Amino acid sequence: MATRYGITTAVKVNGVSQRSIWADPAQGLAWIIDQSRLPHRYATRALASSGDAAEAIRSMRVRGAPLIGVTAAYGVALAMTDDPAEANLDAACAELAATRPTAVNLRWALDRMRAHLAGSLPGERAAAAWQEAAAIAEEDVRVNRALGEHGLALILTLQDRVRRPLNILTHCNAGWLATVDWGTALAPVYLAQLAGIPVHVWVSETRPRNQGLLTAWELREQGVAHTVIADNAAGHLLQRGQVDMVLVGADRVTRRGDVCNKIGTYLKALAARAAGVPFYAAVPGSTFDWTLEDGMAEIPIEERGGDEVRIVHGVDPGGAPLAARLLGQAAAVANPAFDVTPADLVTGLITERGVCPPDAAALRELFR
Amino acid sequence: MATRYGITTAVKVNGVSQRSIWADPAQGLAWIIDQSRLPHRYATRALASSGDAAEAIRSMRVRGAPLIGVTAAYGVALAMTDDPAEANLDAACAELAATRPTAVNLRWALDRMRAHLAGSLPGERAAAAWQEAAAIAEEDVRVNRALGEHGLALILTLQDRVRRPLNILTHCNAGWLATVDWGTALAPVYLAQLAGIPVHVWVSETRPRNQGLLTAWELREQGVAHTVIADNAAGHLLQRGQVDMVLVGADRVTRRGDVCNKIGTYLKALAARAAGVPFYAAVPGSTFDWTLEDGMAEIPIEERGGDEVRIVHGVDPGGAPLAARLLGQAAAVANPAFDVTPADLVTGLITERGVCPPDAAALRELFR
Repeated sequence: MATRYGITTAVKVNGVSQRSIWADPAQGLAWIIDQSRLPHRYATRALASSGDAAEAIRSMRVRGAPLIGVTAAYGVALAMTDDPAEANLDAACAELAATRPTAVNLRWALDRMRAHLAGSLPGERAAAAWQEAAAIAEEDVRVNRALGEHGLALILTLQDRVRRPLNILTHCNAGWLATVDWGTALAPVYLAQLAGIPVHVWVSETRPRNQGLLTAWELREQGVAHTVIADNAAGHLLQRGQVDMVLVGADRVTRRGDVCNKIGTYLKALAARAAGVPFYAAVPGSTFDWTLEDGMAEIPIEERGGDEVRIVHGVDPGGAPLAARLLGQAAAVANPAFDVTPADLVTGLITERGVCPPDAAALRELFR
Repeated sequence: MATRYGITTAVKVNGVSQRSIWADPAQGLAWIIDQSRLPHRYATRALASSGDAAEAIRSMRVRGAPLIGVTAAYGVALAMTDDPAEANLDAACAELAATRPTAVNLRWALDRMRAHLAGSLPGERAAAAWQEAAAIAEEDVRVNRALGEHGLALILTLQDRVRRPLNILTHCNAGWLATVDWGTALAPVYLAQLAGIPVHVWVSETRPRNQGLLTAWELREQGVAHTVIADNAAGHLLQRGQVDMVLVGADRVTRRGDVCNKIGTYLKALAARAAGVPFYAAVPGSTFDWTLEDGMAEIPIEERGGDEVRIVHGVDPGGAPLAARLLGQAAAVANPAFDVTPADLVTGLITERGVCPPDAAALRELFR
């Protein structure tokens, strides 16, 4: 099917192929899906400046480590369109880098944009930046598709064992909305569906921001069987043999395989270990931080505002947005946004280069 | 301080001593706090029939295993006031027993009421029922106070080790609202406060019904330091050494010490074990089910309606009740209300007779 991207995409929204971000260099715009309004309303939004891109990342209109990286790359292109001077490049990169601390793809994408622009003349910079941002986006699609194929092989192996629809538990949203297309944790699920392999996904709602609802929305749009649960129910399901595989994304993975991901992931890894169920993280190469060893000690954990816990966003019976307050403004709240699952709880890392145990030597070899 | 109960109570609401349930036999009424409206609105409600009592339990206007038992006992008194015939006693007990399947205190209280009424003439039954229900309520207060003293001793021991305010993580609400007074898990906390021992409580919100908000409300009313977290954050806090003790209530405990409690408890127990942090359940004798051994295989786990996950209840900026829909009515949802923490993850059971390891012989000896 021809699309606005010129290639067939994995995903469809209302039957139309769709990506989470796309560029219109001629108009000096990057377009995103405003995910802060999903799943209740599907709306796109134009980013006209690097400030717009920074705001979109900070306020989680875009989220998911890979998509954060691509959005930052387009933020640099928008900055170079505005003013290609070195000082503006510095300022834009500094603003974009400061938006969120945990996902390493953000720094990775900005470093790559800087390296690419280092040799270009001011008059060439805008075009070069749009091209490189598009290259990062295309690479994200290819990488996730490749990662999905390796994950599919795992699903096939497990399914062969259970001989019924495989029950996969995921957390947060590591679907196509978290990337440019395909997703990380959900790429194997979408490929399984395309291959006619029956899967059922347990979707944990992922308080406080409820990104599990994005996963449920994606799966419904794609027609994949799924059931939503409160985060608290994951341990019970694992204990009772109702989960065959835990499959999540990641925001940063250290060189020994400690997995930093959405808060609550660690609890699922513990319950998977207790139940003897494999725990996999689907991780593109850009999510590894080769400079870090000990994820618990070295990865900065973002502490987000308490209102994410105090106030829940949903819709009223007519579908209009609604904010339900759970706690008064004076209530003390802690809101760490990520946790770290130690490598020894991780069965394997699903990457675009294959599935690898969480082992420093093996990972170094794979990504040499 | 003189109160409507004639004794000083642990807890105060707006500075006035309060229990979660009280009787007015002369008017043929039992009064409850309508907990389905808390923490946003404090309202009391009269129960005028055993049907009212059953409805209050079923719809969680009252909740918490001990309070469910006491409410059922008053439900029998209301039934006997209405019609003391054997057939009505049977019908009322059957209706009350069917309200919720997991908490064993419900069955325990109904069995005790039946035994007490077995020998009484129809004309004496109403008075005997009100008396016995009141005796059960008074016993609940005494038992929880005693249990609290044993828990306080544990807190003192731990606090002596850390030499700073002790960080206690709790789940759901096992406070005075879940009992007649004092609470189970929170009884040691309230006694610590009375003794001038500094404690800080991590309150996990406890989706889907958010009973953690009841705990936060209780602690605020009593002036105990606390911080609310999303359920997902518990593992992270335990991993980072920010919790000294996990302290929860229970809905049913088997003779070997498997602890059935609010969904999500098991995940906290796993994380406590991984962090080397003690995990205690505060359990009055009436919460033990001596007929059961294996909690995972034998305790019925209530599956509640999916709307508890689909819809969140809070308030609007003016404080009026508000229901925010997270998921469409067609969304598939699973909602198990309890899980079972195996005895081997339990450090100890805090009972009115002392603290006991989860060991069949030791528990049998303690409750001989």
